[in-house]
Amino acid sequence: MPNQNNVSPDMSSKIPHVVIVGVGFAGLYAAKALAGQNIRVTLIDRRNHHTFQPLLYQVASAGLSPGEIAVPIRSIFAKDVNVETLLEEVTGVDLQNQRVLMDDDSVDYDYLIVASGATHAYFGHDDWAPLAPGLKTVEDATEIRRRVLLAYEIAERDAQLGKPVEPINLVVVGGGPTGVELAGAMAEIARQVLADDFRAIRPATTRVLLIEAGPRILATYPEDLSRSATEQLRKLGVEVITGTAVTDIAADHIMVGDKRVRSTVVLWGAGVAASPLGKKLGVPTDRAGRVLVSPDLTIPGHSNVFVLGDLASVKQPNGRPVPGVAPAAIQMGKYAGETIIADLHNKPRKPFHYHDKGSLATIGRSAAVGEIGRFHFSGWPAWMAWLLVHIYFLIGFRNRVVVLLQWLWAYVSFSRGARLITGQSKSVVPIRPGVVHEADVSNREVAAD
Amino acid sequence: MPNQNNVSPDMSSKIPHVVIVGVGFAGLYAAKALAGQNIRVTLIDRRNHHTFQPLLYQVASAGLSPGEIAVPIRSIFAKDVNVETLLEEVTGVDLQNQRVLMDDDSVDYDYLIVASGATHAYFGHDDWAPLAPGLKTVEDATEIRRRVLLAYEIAERDAQLGKPVEPINLVVVGGGPTGVELAGAMAEIARQVLADDFRAIRPATTRVLLIEAGPRILATYPEDLSRSATEQLRKLGVEVITGTAVTDIAADHIMVGDKRVRSTVVLWGAGVAASPLGKKLGVPTDRAGRVLVSPDLTIPGHSNVFVLGDLASVKQPNGRPVPGVAPAAIQMGKYAGETIIADLHNKPRKPFHYHDKGSLATIGRSAAVGEIGRFHFSGWPAWMAWLLVHIYFLIGFRNRVVVLLQWLWAYVSFSRGARLITGQSKSVVPIRPGVVHEADVSNREVAAD
Repeated sequence: MPNQNNVSPDMSSKIPHVVIVGVGFAGLYAAKALAGQNIRVTLIDRRNHHTFQPLLYQVASAGLSPGEIAVPIRSIFAKDVNVETLLEEVTGVDLQNQRVLMDDDSVDYDYLIVASGATHAYFGHDDWAPLAPGLKTVEDATEIRRRVLLAYEIAERDAQLGKPVEPINLVVVGGGPTGVELAGAMAEIARQVLADDFRAIRPATTRVLLIEAGPRILATYPEDLSRSATEQLRKLGVEVITGTAVTDIAADHIMVGDKRVRSTVVLWGAGVAASPLGKKLGVPTDRAGRVLVSPDLTIPGHSNVFVLGDLASVKQPNGRPVPGVAPAAIQMGKYAGETIIADLHNKPRKPFHYHDKGSLATIGRSAAVGEIGRFHFSGWPAWMAWLLVHIYFLIGFRNRVVVLLQWLWAYVSFSRGARLITGQSKSVVPIRPGVVHEADVSNREVAAD
Repeated sequence: MPNQNNVSPDMSSKIPHVVIVGVGFAGLYAAKALAGQNIRVTLIDRRNHHTFQPLLYQVASAGLSPGEIAVPIRSIFAKDVNVETLLEEVTGVDLQNQRVLMDDDSVDYDYLIVASGATHAYFGHDDWAPLAPGLKTVEDATEIRRRVLLAYEIAERDAQLGKPVEPINLVVVGGGPTGVELAGAMAEIARQVLADDFRAIRPATTRVLLIEAGPRILATYPEDLSRSATEQLRKLGVEVITGTAVTDIAADHIMVGDKRVRSTVVLWGAGVAASPLGKKLGVPTDRAGRVLVSPDLTIPGHSNVFVLGDLASVKQPNGRPVPGVAPAAIQMGKYAGETIIADLHNKPRKPFHYHDKGSLATIGRSAAVGEIGRFHFSGWPAWMAWLLVHIYFLIGFRNRVVVLLQWLWAYVSFSRGARLITGQSKSVVPIRPGVVHEADVSNREVAAD
């Protein structure tokens, strides 16, 4: 057991209590490592589902449904009776009293794993958030889908009714992996998926812009792969603009440097910041709010408190930071779980080592880039590798099979079945109570009560 | 061509223009009949998708995802270049000038098909609507799913945190087919689907109540099938209460007659009323607001205006009304489309005949009732028949295969994969900006812009 200043009430019961805050990849794999042990595990998340974030862009681009990439946390651990789940929002941590704080409640812990991830960062321009949604949650993805599909509906309506039609410009801010995925997916929607759907407008005339402030897209990849990605994006019809920062975002345009660019929909893939919970721990953080952890991923002076995933700032032996990708989070989660088990067996701790298995970034159908060690590849082979890796890692058998079928079907038919516009709150078409225009004719019951 | 008082601008172009308001089953099948003809068809709906309403209760009970039972209207008619779609809300019809009215716009027609369906009716108690959601749209279904799943999450949280836990009572008002489906599905969720998911509460102790004001449930079915349905519901653990009306609905209880019954979630399956568009046509309607149509489903004095589906009041030769079920709407839609084509070929109109192919009502896994002519059946055979019929009619190949797989999997495993709680607006767990607890660790890009 680690050094502890306070004895928590749970210690008397002799079964150690591990509390995990956040069930992303890090929290999920930590819990998996602890499942079945003589340990009480409590998962706390403010959502009831784990989101397979690498495929979220597929929901945003109408290729997959939310249910196909999100799994209820409870269902993952249904058979693991030592794992409990709490749908709650954590507001802070009382390190002295070993207590996780919520609005009116608290939970005591023996070990704590904080893996609450990251959120969008607008670099001081929080007013851009409603104008340029990012892609972190299922709700983000369906909101992006709604905005993009509605843009075409409005243009088609205006064209049919003889009104002036504004050309559709989809602007993606940020040329990292998420921005590249989104830009590629938007181009495919415009050029292929919606090609036959409209009568009065031609979706293929859509402009898709990808704007990156730095000198090249996919900056964490080798230069040749950045060039290849740019080339593949251009083939899909994406205009790639680098070396110019977005200086303002308004309702109908953005400023790229000092140039005004009309925009129909703006998507944000430009930056993330660590969850505010990191700073609340009261320990040193880096510029992005990530907690500077020890080699065993714990915080100074509290060897029973782990910080994992996107919330942790960890250096590799070569001095480079461990990247904020799913495989790193998974490795951290497994490490933390195994370290706790080793502690309880009085075994010494080993430091965390990140195994870099390579990187893959998808761009579109048969378009991707990848690096495995010194081997660089792109196009169809990279895309196939990406596809196989992601299907393999999708959690839950049901989802894996269904997603595979969806993709095979989408690949063969160029169709995207999840093109639903749902959610009334921000609908451009006003929904007035008392006027219902969708016909629904089954199971009618008149005056049963 | 029918008698027309006004010559619409479109007549000059010689291609007749058919406008269809509402793309439920009636509107959809009318459009399918007109697809590929030398006719311009405009579909107007305020949603971009056709909802396969008979399976909506599966979304509400977390068995299927919205994308599996809703199909984008445009994708259905992608290859039919004579069919246009307009995402708009119709506010009225100018019969004299042959014009469909929207907020700021209008569309001229030569033929009009009004198939805007029905909506929930709370019999003068509109304040009950937010307390007892009905089941007409995808949004209704996900809202019901959210409320039911959240009820268990809150109970589990309270139990884990040592607070008093209220037992969960799920109340379904109305014993028609929708109420029976919902009650059966809720009982299955409580007894089977969620059985292993919680640690501190036992979902199997949930009370599920089905309350019907009339003397028996499934009143449109023969008495022996009502009895069988009641018996099958009781086996699933549903308390069926008949002969007593719900007199009030409050946040935490309902009044059944003069008896107060505590309720955690209340679902409304008790009544529907025709879309208000019916009354706006200025022609006679029945008590429920349905338009009294001629034998050719048109309105008096306007043989170019059809009213179909749930919005139409049609009598069968035996004097019984054509029921408000999907097969009737489909038959009306086909009839209207074919009648317009016959008109254009100067063929005489035939009156509409409803072919009653029988009725099926599902209750749960291996539980259903059915009648085909004088043949009554229930239990597993009725359920298999229901299953096959509904899979067969599900629109779109992709959906058919995926839904079949989902069901097979759910049948074998008792799991329901679509148990997502999404939507922040009315979340019981407060979502504060700036506090993010779901970990999401992939594709992080720091400061690209």
